[in-house]
Amino acid sequence: MKHLINTQNLTTEEINQIYNRASEFEKSIRKANHINAHIVNMFFENSTRTKMSFEMAENKINANKYDFLADTSSIQKGEDLFDTINNLSAIGMNVVVMRHENNDLIENLSKKQYFQEISFINAGSGTLYHPTQALLDFYTMKKHFLTLSDKTIVIVGDIAHSRVAKSNIELLKKFGMKIRCLAPNNLIGEKIEGVEYFTSLKEAFEEVDIIMALRIQRERIQEKIDFDEYIKNYQITKDNLPYAAFLMHPGPVNRDIEISSEVLEMQNARTILNQAKNGVYVRMAILDMILNAQGL
Amino acid sequence: MKHLINTQNLTTEEINQIYNRASEFEKSIRKANHINAHIVNMFFENSTRTKMSFEMAENKINANKYDFLADTSSIQKGEDLFDTINNLSAIGMNVVVMRHENNDLIENLSKKQYFQEISFINAGSGTLYHPTQALLDFYTMKKHFLTLSDKTIVIVGDIAHSRVAKSNIELLKKFGMKIRCLAPNNLIGEKIEGVEYFTSLKEAFEEVDIIMALRIQRERIQEKIDFDEYIKNYQITKDNLPYAAFLMHPGPVNRDIEISSEVLEMQNARTILNQAKNGVYVRMAILDMILNAQGL
Amino acid sequence: MKHLINTQNLTTEEINQIYNRASEFEKSIRKANHINAHIVNMFFENSTRTKMSFEMAENKINANKYDFLADTSSIQKGEDLFDTINNLSAIGMNVVVMRHENNDLIENLSKKQYFQEISFINAGSGTLYHPTQALLDFYTMKKHFLTLSDKTIVIVGDIAHSRVAKSNIELLKKFGMKIRCLAPNNLIGEKIEGVEYFTSLKEAFEEVDIIMALRIQRERIQEKIDFDEYIKNYQITKDNLPYAAFLMHPGPVNRDIEISSEVLEMQNARTILNQAKNGVYVRMAILDMILNAQGL
Repeated sequence: MKHLINTQNLTTEEINQIYNRASEFEKSIRKANHINAHIVNMFFENSTRTKMSFEMAENKINANKYDFLADTSSIQKGEDLFDTINNLSAIGMNVVVMRHENNDLIENLSKKQYFQEISFINAGSGTLYHPTQALLDFYTMKKHFLTLSDKTIVIVGDIAHSRVAKSNIELLKKFGMKIRCLAPNNLIGEKIEGVEYFTSLKEAFEEVDIIMALRIQRERIQEKIDFDEYIKNYQITKDNLPYAAFLMHPGPVNRDIEISSEVLEMQNARTILNQAKNGVYVRMAILDMILNAQGL
Repeated sequence: MKHLINTQNLTTEEINQIYNRASEFEKSIRKANHINAHIVNMFFENSTRTKMSFEMAENKINANKYDFLADTSSIQKGEDLFDTINNLSAIGMNVVVMRHENNDLIENLSKKQYFQEISFINAGSGTLYHPTQALLDFYTMKKHFLTLSDKTIVIVGDIAHSRVAKSNIELLKKFGMKIRCLAPNNLIGEKIEGVEYFTSLKEAFEEVDIIMALRIQRERIQEKIDFDEYIKNYQITKDNLPYAAFLMHPGPVNRDIEISSEVLEMQNARTILNQAKNGVYVRMAILDMILNAQGL
Repeated sequence: MKHLINTQNLTTEEINQIYNRASEFEKSIRKANHINAHIVNMFFENSTRTKMSFEMAENKINANKYDFLADTSSIQKGEDLFDTINNLSAIGMNVVVMRHENNDLIENLSKKQYFQEISFINAGSGTLYHPTQALLDFYTMKKHFLTLSDKTIVIVGDIAHSRVAKSNIELLKKFGMKIRCLAPNNLIGEKIEGVEYFTSLKEAFEEVDIIMALRIQRERIQEKIDFDEYIKNYQITKDNLPYAAFLMHPGPVNRDIEISSEVLEMQNARTILNQAKNGVYVRMAILDMILNAQGL
């Protein structure tokens, strides 16, 4: 694996390899000692969760980490950013972990020629791609269920603006899962092949194994959202949550919007924090594979 | 020791243990190697001095350090901050070092249940608590004086807004020191039991062993301060400084306000920098004790 | 070497020592293990390139690095900055790497007396000094050419506001190079002894060995710049670039202003990224020499 840009391009073999390696890191069977690796984190969108998770993964594989503080005045267009990264490559950076509001910029940058080999990991781009989140979600599900191909997942909420939803859909389709999306009409976005769409929570939650709630991406939504209407029809509560459902959420949760506080205190909500925990091992695995591919 | 929230709750035994351990770190008798410990610094108020001191302590005990850059848009109420820290706990953070303008938030957060064990160290909260500063002040005094129980300290200046003053008063009372506070009426704040209050510098400085000047906390004071009046009556100068007095200040000093530049060039002022130096050892001791209590 | 403030004060012996040591680091003949060294980066002007380069050098010599985030509210005058650094010295910092818009502040700070020994490295000050850039430029030239004393360099562009130009001129004069400056009248600045000045590119580029283009320092220029006029007369293009010329630029390049995009795709432009690469080794050498001089 040279870059990690999206889940579309990943083979099931690569996904299983990430799963296995993450599992080895979690069980402390595998250790990595990348003392000669230099990784720069370039977050052009706010992130505490994903960034801290990457930083911990970088520390745990004993790599050197760098914080690129995006300065809006020196970086204004994609072309300049290429020059910056080409310089970082010349300085000796081996990996760029990047988050950006543009859907395709990271992929475009990864296709260019640099002074020295440098790999890109997409830590979230626009409304389309968040492959490390999808991979940690997959890791969390696969640890819990013996098989996934016979399971049904319903993804609930702001599908339209969610890179988490789209990356998960691409990934889980590869493993034959039945995928449902539940959202009000204005948050459903462009329909994706192979996905069943619902607007009624009652119907969508019938015989479901996994419920993945999404954060309402207020920062990406132009029109006014009717939160009362959303809460009434789509909030996950003690009353509508199926007893055995495996409840997930990429975080941060908007408390009492997507999920009621009452549910967040229940045992089901522990999965959400397990996702955060698992993210570190998955990112260690990805970094380790990419550095190994570079001979580091 | 699970958390360090304030000096009230510390036993004299714990304080002496911190003193002894800091002393061992200073003499290089003790070394710590917390390579599996992950410490996140969350400073919601500006700090260079305390933050750099904690960072150096974290490096010197070989822990992994993380910088949480407080983003006002994603963190607005205590509840959300709890969710954030619960996620940091899930990711694998072991200790939160926090500074916050709220007096009680850190204590409240420390009482909650998290995904995995996580300890809180208060690096300054509101106008009430700054336990690591008081402990480093205590360490500095105890290194200098054979006994403290027969000594008199006068704390001078902006007592009302000073968490340093209040944490020191609580701490030093435990060791039987005679404590005086000297301030103009508008900076004296609520009176504390067991403390003698003065408004005349001449009287307060009589037969005193230790003088602890405080920074005027301009950022916390609403009303206009009459600096000329303050300087005339309370500035520590070559003329009013008792020859043998042990002069302290938590820093940063407002030059020529609390202390004249002339005094800052004198040998007495060297104590102020010794306080900064000692802070690293005291923080190493606290971190080491808290990590040991977690089995790390 | 106790401090590195400018290129004026460096002896040719010191410069050659930096060259040799950088070369040993590049060839991995020399390794440094400064685990007890603490280096604080204080950048009061934006910098990604130089800062990342210093950070990588600090990591590669196994020193502890700290990021001082300049807070405009606590640091307002030079005197206060002295107090801050005196505290950093007390805390245990061994080296300050500083960038500042003031020409002479870093030198003035380096002459003061601190609590403990602390060395200053100038990472760019005002419009006059950028010694590490000049040293890495020198390293890049010396690696390429057998001798420098018989070579002619032309420095092109915004000489007036360029600390890179001035530091290079001082340094290269010591090695007997013939130095030309080419710029429109409003960017030529005060003339320096021993330098030949040109306003015509055609004349300046005659029989030249090295061309060093400079970034137009828009942030330092008050008056409006006529970019069309500059591009027409001074842009380095495929047509005016001498075939064998060694093309340099300190970066970041303003594409299609100082140098045409076409030239940036040519083999000649690879030198510019080699400068960035070499900077890490040169900074490792400087840090290593300064730490050794402190007995670290």
